[in-house]
Amino acid sequence: MGDPRGIGPEVVVKSVSRKDLHQVCRPLILGDPLVLRRTAEALGFRLRVAEIEEGSILEMPEGGLTVLPLSRLLPGEVTPEESSRASFRYLEKAGRMALAGQVEAIVTGPVSKGAIARTGIPFQGHTEFFAGLAGTKDFVMMLAGDRLRVALVTTHVPLNEVSKSLKEEKILSVVEITGGSLKEYFGFTKPRIAVAAFNPHGGEGGLFGVEENIISRTVDQARGKDWIVSGPWPADSLFYRAVQGEYDAVVCMYHDQGLIPLKLLHFDTAVNVTLGLPFLRTSVDHGVAYDIVGKGIASPRSMEEAIKMAAQMALRKRKAPHLKDQMGNSLG
Amino acid sequence: MGDPRGIGPEVVVKSVSRKDLHQVCRPLILGDPLVLRRTAEALGFRLRVAEIEEGSILEMPEGGLTVLPLSRLLPGEVTPEESSRASFRYLEKAGRMALAGQVEAIVTGPVSKGAIARTGIPFQGHTEFFAGLAGTKDFVMMLAGDRLRVALVTTHVPLNEVSKSLKEEKILSVVEITGGSLKEYFGFTKPRIAVAAFNPHGGEGGLFGVEENIISRTVDQARGKDWIVSGPWPADSLFYRAVQGEYDAVVCMYHDQGLIPLKLLHFDTAVNVTLGLPFLRTSVDHGVAYDIVGKGIASPRSMEEAIKMAAQMALRKRKAPHLKDQMGNSLG
Repeated sequence: MGDPRGIGPEVVVKSVSRKDLHQVCRPLILGDPLVLRRTAEALGFRLRVAEIEEGSILEMPEGGLTVLPLSRLLPGEVTPEESSRASFRYLEKAGRMALAGQVEAIVTGPVSKGAIARTGIPFQGHTEFFAGLAGTKDFVMMLAGDRLRVALVTTHVPLNEVSKSLKEEKILSVVEITGGSLKEYFGFTKPRIAVAAFNPHGGEGGLFGVEENIISRTVDQARGKDWIVSGPWPADSLFYRAVQGEYDAVVCMYHDQGLIPLKLLHFDTAVNVTLGLPFLRTSVDHGVAYDIVGKGIASPRSMEEAIKMAAQMALRKRKAPHLKDQMGNSLG
Repeated sequence: MGDPRGIGPEVVVKSVSRKDLHQVCRPLILGDPLVLRRTAEALGFRLRVAEIEEGSILEMPEGGLTVLPLSRLLPGEVTPEESSRASFRYLEKAGRMALAGQVEAIVTGPVSKGAIARTGIPFQGHTEFFAGLAGTKDFVMMLAGDRLRVALVTTHVPLNEVSKSLKEEKILSVVEITGGSLKEYFGFTKPRIAVAAFNPHGGEGGLFGVEENIISRTVDQARGKDWIVSGPWPADSLFYRAVQGEYDAVVCMYHDQGLIPLKLLHFDTAVNVTLGLPFLRTSVDHGVAYDIVGKGIASPRSMEEAIKMAAQMALRKRKAPHLKDQMGNSLG
């Protein structure tokens, strides 16, 4: 559900109330029934918010909003601390249920990283949290829209610390996980992956930086697999070329390198996908947007797309025989 | 004319042969008559390439291509070194003529920074070169298209060295020069300027970096002038908002932060404008593109837009009375 004080409850109510979503999946909301009911009421939505216990999720009713209650906050009286702790509890539960095979995919709403960290919980972001829970270091944050897909080598770190994080092993892992996932979950037979340079003009032969040497060696290593990889390409013109159809995904060295073009093209339709985890996970790509909470104007598009993409990926995963042993199909 | 071995000659021939450009300005090409003639011939353009001496430029003929010859290279036999040295000579001459008031604006074609630097000439880029020649440190590189304008606080430096270049004085200067120029040359009565954050999520309250503190103090200092300034804004969603009409320009902390969204929207129509120099200067925003030289497929759009913008800015400068004393109107 995301942070109870953010727009998460609103985009959940708006999207999960759509009938077409129930045709592709069975959504279970981990969150707060009081907040969801109040949100639905304020929006003028007449829908049933049913509560369910963890042991009964296989008997989840069809349609409507079904909630596994993990907090009972009084709307309007919630402190930032209570809200942040609750939003963290939803994530933790979701991760554990996915690891146990109780759910086939996680879709996350927006939380405030800063607010959670201020409660004393060490938290760098959803993606890092789930990777830690699953005990994997080889995960990739991908942002995907209709026209552009970007995969990030580094995510929520200060930009000034990115350079020292650019290791061959890490970049190679991102290229390989991206290539494999484009095949398994996105239907590309031979994915074309472009790797972005780090410095302006791709370093212009060493004049504006040397990180391109590492990237270049990595691209050489990544060749000859089930995908076509090239780079490092100067980042300023690369995304235009990708959008024109030259590439199926762009591997980016830092957060804003990928998210600036992605959000420019797909402001409210992009989906955040975590690749490389033992479970599937997508997310809205927007924040808590405290400034528009309660106004009824939050767009549910990203949440709808995130749910649809999770459902589609889960379906492809069911069909891929060599992946079956990684996954319990308890809802199948 | 730009690097004789790049696509500069081609985009110059294609754009300057257009009659509509001669209605808004009188273009004088600083370059190589042999290369230009061979380029025009290869493109199948039947046009006159006239040579002129420096002392006679006031008697420049109407129409056609008029060249001040600064090199005579044999097309097809030019070494990278000869080509780079020649392209640097054109720039130097252009700068001196503009400083002397012999021309009202400079429009530059693409050169290879790396190739020039390899000849032993210290060269970081056009913009830095002209600023050095004019003896000013307070200049701004702006990239402008119909839908987005970005002004850069840092330009051609390794990304890993940007953080230490972010000083209040520098950022403030960029905001003020951008604001003043939007008023003088772009026709905005009260320009709205957004200042981008440096770190992912705008630093998320210090969690992902601290450069936003400096940016924030600078924005406070820049308020209350003839423009509306705000920020630091998380960069990932900022450009979408600017394009939606919220801002007239975005001040960016590093090269690719501004150029990624700019080129995504305006791949071959963006113009590079140097603000804050004692003379006007625009440029194409693409590179030498050695890979497509001689194929006849280089788009002249950016060069055409650069020439038109320079002409329009020169006209506004003529009309602005308090600027007149900075400028000899020898061609007026």
